[in-house]
Amino acid sequence: MHESDKQADTRSSPRYNGFPTFARLPVSRRTDAQAMIIGVPSDVGSTDRPGGRFGPAAIRQASLILRQYNPALDVRPFEVLGCTDGGDVEAIPGFLHRTYEAVEQEVRPLVEKGVTPVFLGGDHACTLGHLRAVRDHAPVGLLLVDAHHDAWDDFYGEKYTHGTWLRRALEEGLVDPARSIVVGLRGSLYDERDWTMLHEELGIEYLTADEVHDQPLDAVLERIRLRLGGGSTFFSFDIDSVDPSFAPGTGALEVGGFFPRQVLLMVRGLAGVRFVGFDVVEVLPALDPSFVTANLAAHVAFEMLSVLALERLSRSDPA
Amino acid sequence: MHESDKQADTRSSPRYNGFPTFARLPVSRRTDAQAMIIGVPSDVGSTDRPGGRFGPAAIRQASLILRQYNPALDVRPFEVLGCTDGGDVEAIPGFLHRTYEAVEQEVRPLVEKGVTPVFLGGDHACTLGHLRAVRDHAPVGLLLVDAHHDAWDDFYGEKYTHGTWLRRALEEGLVDPARSIVVGLRGSLYDERDWTMLHEELGIEYLTADEVHDQPLDAVLERIRLRLGGGSTFFSFDIDSVDPSFAPGTGALEVGGFFPRQVLLMVRGLAGVRFVGFDVVEVLPALDPSFVTANLAAHVAFEMLSVLALERLSRSDPA
Amino acid sequence: MHESDKQADTRSSPRYNGFPTFARLPVSRRTDAQAMIIGVPSDVGSTDRPGGRFGPAAIRQASLILRQYNPALDVRPFEVLGCTDGGDVEAIPGFLHRTYEAVEQEVRPLVEKGVTPVFLGGDHACTLGHLRAVRDHAPVGLLLVDAHHDAWDDFYGEKYTHGTWLRRALEEGLVDPARSIVVGLRGSLYDERDWTMLHEELGIEYLTADEVHDQPLDAVLERIRLRLGGGSTFFSFDIDSVDPSFAPGTGALEVGGFFPRQVLLMVRGLAGVRFVGFDVVEVLPALDPSFVTANLAAHVAFEMLSVLALERLSRSDPA
Amino acid sequence: MHESDKQADTRSSPRYNGFPTFARLPVSRRTDAQAMIIGVPSDVGSTDRPGGRFGPAAIRQASLILRQYNPALDVRPFEVLGCTDGGDVEAIPGFLHRTYEAVEQEVRPLVEKGVTPVFLGGDHACTLGHLRAVRDHAPVGLLLVDAHHDAWDDFYGEKYTHGTWLRRALEEGLVDPARSIVVGLRGSLYDERDWTMLHEELGIEYLTADEVHDQPLDAVLERIRLRLGGGSTFFSFDIDSVDPSFAPGTGALEVGGFFPRQVLLMVRGLAGVRFVGFDVVEVLPALDPSFVTANLAAHVAFEMLSVLALERLSRSDPA
Amino acid sequence: MHESDKQADTRSSPRYNGFPTFARLPVSRRTDAQAMIIGVPSDVGSTDRPGGRFGPAAIRQASLILRQYNPALDVRPFEVLGCTDGGDVEAIPGFLHRTYEAVEQEVRPLVEKGVTPVFLGGDHACTLGHLRAVRDHAPVGLLLVDAHHDAWDDFYGEKYTHGTWLRRALEEGLVDPARSIVVGLRGSLYDERDWTMLHEELGIEYLTADEVHDQPLDAVLERIRLRLGGGSTFFSFDIDSVDPSFAPGTGALEVGGFFPRQVLLMVRGLAGVRFVGFDVVEVLPALDPSFVTANLAAHVAFEMLSVLALERLSRSDPA
Amino acid sequence: MHESDKQADTRSSPRYNGFPTFARLPVSRRTDAQAMIIGVPSDVGSTDRPGGRFGPAAIRQASLILRQYNPALDVRPFEVLGCTDGGDVEAIPGFLHRTYEAVEQEVRPLVEKGVTPVFLGGDHACTLGHLRAVRDHAPVGLLLVDAHHDAWDDFYGEKYTHGTWLRRALEEGLVDPARSIVVGLRGSLYDERDWTMLHEELGIEYLTADEVHDQPLDAVLERIRLRLGGGSTFFSFDIDSVDPSFAPGTGALEVGGFFPRQVLLMVRGLAGVRFVGFDVVEVLPALDPSFVTANLAAHVAFEMLSVLALERLSRSDPA
Repeated sequence: MHESDKQADTRSSPRYNGFPTFARLPVSRRTDAQAMIIGVPSDVGSTDRPGGRFGPAAIRQASLILRQYNPALDVRPFEVLGCTDGGDVEAIPGFLHRTYEAVEQEVRPLVEKGVTPVFLGGDHACTLGHLRAVRDHAPVGLLLVDAHHDAWDDFYGEKYTHGTWLRRALEEGLVDPARSIVVGLRGSLYDERDWTMLHEELGIEYLTADEVHDQPLDAVLERIRLRLGGGSTFFSFDIDSVDPSFAPGTGALEVGGFFPRQVLLMVRGLAGVRFVGFDVVEVLPALDPSFVTANLAAHVAFEMLSVLALERLSRSDPA
Repeated sequence: MHESDKQADTRSSPRYNGFPTFARLPVSRRTDAQAMIIGVPSDVGSTDRPGGRFGPAAIRQASLILRQYNPALDVRPFEVLGCTDGGDVEAIPGFLHRTYEAVEQEVRPLVEKGVTPVFLGGDHACTLGHLRAVRDHAPVGLLLVDAHHDAWDDFYGEKYTHGTWLRRALEEGLVDPARSIVVGLRGSLYDERDWTMLHEELGIEYLTADEVHDQPLDAVLERIRLRLGGGSTFFSFDIDSVDPSFAPGTGALEVGGFFPRQVLLMVRGLAGVRFVGFDVVEVLPALDPSFVTANLAAHVAFEMLSVLALERLSRSDPA
Repeated sequence: MHESDKQADTRSSPRYNGFPTFARLPVSRRTDAQAMIIGVPSDVGSTDRPGGRFGPAAIRQASLILRQYNPALDVRPFEVLGCTDGGDVEAIPGFLHRTYEAVEQEVRPLVEKGVTPVFLGGDHACTLGHLRAVRDHAPVGLLLVDAHHDAWDDFYGEKYTHGTWLRRALEEGLVDPARSIVVGLRGSLYDERDWTMLHEELGIEYLTADEVHDQPLDAVLERIRLRLGGGSTFFSFDIDSVDPSFAPGTGALEVGGFFPRQVLLMVRGLAGVRFVGFDVVEVLPALDPSFVTANLAAHVAFEMLSVLALERLSRSDPA
Repeated sequence: MHESDKQADTRSSPRYNGFPTFARLPVSRRTDAQAMIIGVPSDVGSTDRPGGRFGPAAIRQASLILRQYNPALDVRPFEVLGCTDGGDVEAIPGFLHRTYEAVEQEVRPLVEKGVTPVFLGGDHACTLGHLRAVRDHAPVGLLLVDAHHDAWDDFYGEKYTHGTWLRRALEEGLVDPARSIVVGLRGSLYDERDWTMLHEELGIEYLTADEVHDQPLDAVLERIRLRLGGGSTFFSFDIDSVDPSFAPGTGALEVGGFFPRQVLLMVRGLAGVRFVGFDVVEVLPALDPSFVTANLAAHVAFEMLSVLALERLSRSDPA
Repeated sequence: MHESDKQADTRSSPRYNGFPTFARLPVSRRTDAQAMIIGVPSDVGSTDRPGGRFGPAAIRQASLILRQYNPALDVRPFEVLGCTDGGDVEAIPGFLHRTYEAVEQEVRPLVEKGVTPVFLGGDHACTLGHLRAVRDHAPVGLLLVDAHHDAWDDFYGEKYTHGTWLRRALEEGLVDPARSIVVGLRGSLYDERDWTMLHEELGIEYLTADEVHDQPLDAVLERIRLRLGGGSTFFSFDIDSVDPSFAPGTGALEVGGFFPRQVLLMVRGLAGVRFVGFDVVEVLPALDPSFVTANLAAHVAFEMLSVLALERLSRSDPA
Repeated sequence: MHESDKQADTRSSPRYNGFPTFARLPVSRRTDAQAMIIGVPSDVGSTDRPGGRFGPAAIRQASLILRQYNPALDVRPFEVLGCTDGGDVEAIPGFLHRTYEAVEQEVRPLVEKGVTPVFLGGDHACTLGHLRAVRDHAPVGLLLVDAHHDAWDDFYGEKYTHGTWLRRALEEGLVDPARSIVVGLRGSLYDERDWTMLHEELGIEYLTADEVHDQPLDAVLERIRLRLGGGSTFFSFDIDSVDPSFAPGTGALEVGGFFPRQVLLMVRGLAGVRFVGFDVVEVLPALDPSFVTANLAAHVAFEMLSVLALERLSRSDPA
């Protein structure tokens, strides 16, 4: 049994040995970590298929393959950031507001000490809690990579669901629409104004999946970076932004999404943005028989941490 | 496509043809039906694994095998009762009290017209709604076949869950403890008084699974019938009363439960009890890869309807 | 329970509530519908893996995600066409000619009233029945998107299978080879002349999958439109035209097929063609554990309906 | 690679090495074998779920565990009988009568040389072919272990299906009703006379599953042996005679069937009957995710061979 | 996140929250624990299907349902024993002797401090390591519940496999045959002497599965207790002793095994035996799609701990 | 049953009929075959997930779809090469060196007679055995298409694993680094020098997956051909070179790999290289629920044989 305080090395101990923490990191909520994995096992906000509560465990299981060094970005994210696995917050099944409270209560003190959380969802409704936990004196910019904008006003009269959290976040002043962008919209819609409303009514920019597919990635990244600017930014990644044929383990299967590699390149291309928090959400293990969805989510989190590590390195070494 | 107002006959049309209604019955909420299948696709009350919202669909799919006549009881339940499939109530994901309201609002008027509902769950928290919908001037007797008593006071401070509904039903005066019995208790417990509390504190009788296994079924049935007496009775069947090796598609896998046939015999043995409603709950299709759990649930509902039909026949023909 | 005569709206009622009709459309065979979903649950024509009989149900289940409006084509197909779900024809397992009779007997009267059918298969042998049901005074053009041409003369001496229906359709004068094209051919062959025979012997044009991959989609679409011309055309889509890694739930897994998005773009690009009928065939749910194949099939049918709706709108409003 | 002419021994070569023949027997149709495994990969006779065509392969895969010696009956069946695996007959998908012809054409010559076939199905319609292949100068007795009697006259007007073959066999004079018995009937019925018709109209005896459950096995066996008498007998075993919770991989899941061990004991108890052929049918691998159904089928075939071997030994050594 | 030093209580924190330790026990190898769960993730000894290396994780996952109190034996095993989850030993894939070394090196020091290990396997070859770790000044008695005796001399000339470890243990003087018994033998055999050799050659007693099925459990237990006597005893439980229809997730599916409840009763009936160690082996998660096998294994371990707790209580309180 | 000495034709016999040999080829080790399929069912070298021992069977099952003629290369590989299926070598579970011995002992004599083996793995450690079997007077060039270079020195001190075989092959002088190239490297690394070491320390060239994605395939192929030159070359294809979303059934899921069609084009583009052997390894059926991984592996082997056939044709007909 490993009882180390650093990442276990698969060259000396088999990958499946022991309890599956993220990337075999030590379990700890120590406040000198610059980044921390936090599971949010809650799916009460889903309007369709539940099971996201088992997402954090599945992503951790898949993450066992992650090693020390990221060659694409030339960085050792776990080491640079002193990253730990902070376990799960006490999400209570069936009671979304208690999940929000748990996230805020458990994570906000860490954020105040300088820890940047990487949340593993959970359904997307949890992101409202994530935003509350990382909130700053001013609203943050939001990068939302998702097939859906999640800014509807309600479902069946209910205001807090995985399809409405973004509108609530705007109402609460957590997100600055002028520094926010949704990337990856696609699928059939309830209404002709479903997307345009985003810009016209809420002041948020968006890129459809087709727009991303039809232009060079650099142009896409440029536009995202331009929108986010230099301020504090939260990055929320919904796995359903990827095409369901490549990431079936999620709740809403809209054909025409991103390729797995496209997503890694997109995250890597955001080095330099000042991220104050991340989440990877909507992984549903029961619909993921070959584990590729959880695996992709783990890799996305790894790239997020790598980008964060690069930013920290550049800060400490401004040369 | 069948557009008949009676059960489709598999001798003339293949079983898989058309929309999967319960036992290929017509879809209708007509109030002259004596019995009606009602789906309650809700799982927000689950404290562990969700997915019971897909239970009604899975039970209906499995029920396509059910034919007209029950040879074990010599009765044609669907014909005798003019049974229909009333579809699903508008359960709202994430909001248990709205499910309760929907059940009451949609089903109570039917009950008042003389329809006896057979609810397909859904998690067991729904049974509180079922009891409200069938409630009478006086509390009803309750036959609860279940591995767990579901009469805990709360989970994490929450009062409405699939482990606490029975206590709420008692508090609301929906259930008469003196005419109630829980059958099938087993598994590890939180506390030494977990079971004895039922009798000592709440006044409800119980039989453990071991007690049922260790005596002739007739003795068990006699004791149940004695307890229920001649008054109005609700019969709630939790599929986890069956051993998980035989019915894996449920949330809490306690070894040592009933055999499939034992369960059919138990239901059949209750002909004569005056049932005012039934439910079959806690079927989780995502954990039922070979469909045997949903299949057993469908057969249990068929035996419930058969027992009800016999009682109606005996009433109309008291000879 | 919804008893509406229009598409249920997932903003007010959860997607999984009720019986799974295509896109939550009303069930009806009313003859004033301009388009109708028709299931053909038959797989007796398969020479290898059966199970296509469960295809219509799986595609309907997946289609529950489809909403009212198609942003890619700016159209509300269901509303424009008054689309309904006409249920399944009475296909009889094991007897292909009875399936043909059922399709013709049930669907031809609808076609004569102006209904355009969108058939959900079923194995590809059913397409002979579909063509009979939509046949006009003259042979129709055929757009066949498929990994295989299905124009072999026989398998083991049998003339009616999912590999021979196209030759039968030509013999019956249902299809005009000069206005027909097969798109997506690939895989190993029985013979050097397997493909060239199509053109040389039968007078049908074809594009291999490699030819589609290696040129801009616009060029492909131009060539297809040129071939189909302005006359009545049937569009048959075999899901095995897609690469098996992206759509595994089918019978013949030939590596090198289309991408999911490529297929959507292809269908969308055919707006303007005068389609008299459509089918989506060869979905095998037992081989589709993550549902992506049925999901893609549902999306293809949605794009077909959208293209049809555009054509109807352009007819009624020629401006 | 083994190229031996006898059963491979798992003590010297791993079980999974090489091509999966039944019990690792040599592949051969040599006519000096006293018993031979014959696969009949056909499912066109199924009225509901297809896939039985893959049954022979699944049973063979499961049978790799079978070793040389049966301790329950103290016999080495493969050695005593010189048993081989004769492969599959050329069943043609979609064409039942061609399957019948193939069985008769390929197997009848073997039977005439003294080979006793053990057929691996395939759906139950195939048994008509099996009976034709083993037919004698006089009708044979039939032991049918099955949840259903398969003696309906037709389904949707069709006379040759897995639910009607027994009536056809009687009409063809292949089976002697006076020496026939159906064991294991259960489930809901189309009609009050569904079972009694067997005796009253067709002259065949039957035992319901309940009757078997409710009496000692010895009494059951005695009654079967009495009925079969000393003449030539065919033993047809439908895996759906077992409870679906224990053998889910089949087409019709009727609750209340036999236990796995009960079935082994039943077969073992028939030593002494003069069997001229056997089949094990209705194994559907696609519904058997944990392989227990195919595994049980393989064990049933092993016990059949053991009983046959005992009978042959007793013949050659009448002492 | 729980960081408690005792079992988490599901009444206050959802079962799926956090890292899946056995029964939600604290992770620790503290030497004042009287019992400890130890995973041995090794399957290199398997002669057929691998994957037992994932057994410990699967059993832990299933064990999350285990609560504090065992009503069948009226004991709180975890509390009485101060039980912890000691994690996994460093088994090295592909190198059985290194697994043996790891078990001995990591666990022997714990045993010497008075910790009784409950090993979660892993394939059965690991038991040789378990016996070395718990060995005493004298050979221990062995209770082996298993479908196979595992005392063959070699497979393909190799001496250390899951089918030969018992012979090696005897040769090493770890096990006293005169105080050992194998319970549950069944299935086909390589040889007429396969079982009798146990007694005749090795001096070990055995009970076949049929012998257990055919007599009252009390008689079986009496015989086992008599054989084991009052000395130190190791209890090795192979999950394949259970019928494969009830516990499919294992390597060798021999029909005719125990029922799940039968197994619990058997373990409970052994209270009073002086156990010095336990294991539960041969759980293969990849073959356990509905998790019932791992679930049963977790329950067996719970009963083992309960029996051990009773013995400790009786020692400390001889009254 | 087919007993032909050539490939069965699916136009006259259904694909699933009979024992699943590769592409329905005859089973034989006749030495006049120019190419032979050889299964190596061994996975003891895996450091993480086992199950590759079942790879050969799964690839053969998938290969049943392969027909006679390859239209992309205009060649009939099986006919040109007189190809047979030589079955499996006697790999012994748990003992890697015995697998090496078996490969060498069984296959080397065939190679000496002029047979070119196409090995179906098995984990990648087996490739050391493959190289020994095909070794020439001089070291061969190696084309390794793989996400990992497999040239680490040891794992947990062990020298023979699926991550270290290439270093061993170099040490044994089996491979000429100057004529070797690794294609497809990606994923997180243990170390900054993980890849550069290949060139700097071992003298082997490599192309990362990103490098392949970012340039035209022709340039990639040119570079590979240049490196391999005109000498004897072994081609080892690890299925994990493909993106896990498209080929999930393998042990190490690194996001960002090749597309299925990209891989076929790559193999086809190597016509002209002088290959002396091939393998396709690391297919794990238990993680391949929709069979797409095994299917792709079968297609890769088909393209390998096609390229070999072309080279043989060009040799015999140098015009």
